[in-house]
Amino acid sequence: MIVALAGGVGGAKLAVGLAAVLPPAELTIVVNTGDDFEHLGFTVCPDLDTVLYTLAGENNPKLGWGRAGETWNFMNEVKRLGGQDWFQLGDRDLALHVLRREALARGASLSTVMRDLAACFGVEHTMLPMSETPVRTVVKTKFGELAFQDYFVRLRCKPRVTGFRFAGAKAARVPDALARVLRERVDAVVICPSNPFVSIAPIVSVPAIKAWLKARTFPVIAVSPIIGGAAVKGPAAKMMRELGIKPNALEIARHYERNYGNAVDHWVIDQQDAKLISAIERMGKRVLVTDTLMTSRRKSAILARQVLGFARKQINV
Amino acid sequence: MIVALAGGVGGAKLAVGLAAVLPPAELTIVVNTGDDFEHLGFTVCPDLDTVLYTLAGENNPKLGWGRAGETWNFMNEVKRLGGQDWFQLGDRDLALHVLRREALARGASLSTVMRDLAACFGVEHTMLPMSETPVRTVVKTKFGELAFQDYFVRLRCKPRVTGFRFAGAKAARVPDALARVLRERVDAVVICPSNPFVSIAPIVSVPAIKAWLKARTFPVIAVSPIIGGAAVKGPAAKMMRELGIKPNALEIARHYERNYGNAVDHWVIDQQDAKLISAIERMGKRVLVTDTLMTSRRKSAILARQVLGFARKQINV
Repeated sequence: MIVALAGGVGGAKLAVGLAAVLPPAELTIVVNTGDDFEHLGFTVCPDLDTVLYTLAGENNPKLGWGRAGETWNFMNEVKRLGGQDWFQLGDRDLALHVLRREALARGASLSTVMRDLAACFGVEHTMLPMSETPVRTVVKTKFGELAFQDYFVRLRCKPRVTGFRFAGAKAARVPDALARVLRERVDAVVICPSNPFVSIAPIVSVPAIKAWLKARTFPVIAVSPIIGGAAVKGPAAKMMRELGIKPNALEIARHYERNYGNAVDHWVIDQQDAKLISAIERMGKRVLVTDTLMTSRRKSAILARQVLGFARKQINV
Repeated sequence: MIVALAGGVGGAKLAVGLAAVLPPAELTIVVNTGDDFEHLGFTVCPDLDTVLYTLAGENNPKLGWGRAGETWNFMNEVKRLGGQDWFQLGDRDLALHVLRREALARGASLSTVMRDLAACFGVEHTMLPMSETPVRTVVKTKFGELAFQDYFVRLRCKPRVTGFRFAGAKAARVPDALARVLRERVDAVVICPSNPFVSIAPIVSVPAIKAWLKARTFPVIAVSPIIGGAAVKGPAAKMMRELGIKPNALEIARHYERNYGNAVDHWVIDQQDAKLISAIERMGKRVLVTDTLMTSRRKSAILARQVLGFARKQINV
């Protein structure tokens, strides 16, 4: 069993590759729910939906969120009626949100709802929210705290960040299906190239996941989300700079080491960052240098195969 | 002050005429909410929305419900995901439903929500739900009771009806704004050409409205919803036949007399039904014969002017 920890776009892309390479029974994708929020009466789960839509091949690659071939008649009308229009929900995307709200209102757990939705989309691999209960990423800034989507969408990541906290993390309850995975034999964990602060950190903030990683007997392979000093997408590099961390793969490795102890054994970094190999190796890590830019489903699968090969090599050593 | 009792399409058409002829301060449109139901997590209010959209000139005349220029991307996706698709909600229509649900969830009353939505649509005349609390029309059939929309939409009015009841009517609470109108001077009540059984009867089933009509000092003018033995739209004539009532304007008048005592003074019937004048007059009613088919907003205004003239003549006599 391979467990992947995934956030939004970068996580979804590697998840696609892993799903192309591994049978459903051998992969569990644990998805960040720290970005989730309540909006227009819906529970919006940006990362879960991005992973789902991407696995299904129905994601909108241009936007990086939402559905392919989307229309916006609902949203335009909400705007015309004076409703909140700063967070976009497309007409097709809304179907998922309405069905999810109905199911949650009936008392279904988030993981069950997402499992059923995944089945509707023909997704066979297991995708699990990191928590059944709400964990909400809060962005600390000099001017106070901001709910994640206020920071991320409404304010377009403009405020300078000073830190993060994950409201609800202490009481977070992992899905039963994830608890089973955490108890069973895991061959390796893959940390996808997702934002360390607002995609991976919320997942690791869940007590059951944190304890499981701490007591691990399996290797952990992380793929750097920073390529050549920049994030492929999103505010990771900007956040690093604001926190006084130089945005590069070495500093990402140091950040994980500082925050989670010896949580990562293997780093996969981009060929553009080859010069950082020896510094990361000096930290006691193995390093794989390759092309990590997943610009197609084919390239996602190639990277996934390399990551798994790298993990397997270690498992057998 | 003129108070109009209105159901769906026929009510909305006469409401448009009355609103064209009367200033906002002189008209209150009381709308049936017996058709309302909870669907996909939304409170759907077909008659309120039809009246609102029609007053705003944004109704879909072809369908007889919903918005003009509507698209169905949400609904098609709900269907694809295996959700309930027997009751259609268009992409634009959904904006109103989402905003209404949000406002109701915040604790706003239905009348307040509809007032605010009407303002968004530029509708200046007062449109009030007959009740703030749910009153739900239940259709009795030989095979048991059916929720109204199950009968009306899902089963396309096919089951033979044996009667109706209005669940929640006894405890129904009229909006404060309507309670004020009921206490103040009313010059006349217009019963729009709406279905007597499932549009007007639910309104009259509300205790405060029933008592107000019983103690009235104002004239009541009803427009027959049956023209030449048929309903312009909807199942009124079919229902009459199934209940053993011949579908014509005379039998409608007799039906009101039987059920509500002397609740109507004046009948407005279509020119096609001129032969029924004397029979209705023999019931002690005044009768106006005219073209009641409202095939345009202009014709709605002409009929409204005739109805109000007929009422005024009586007031001054």
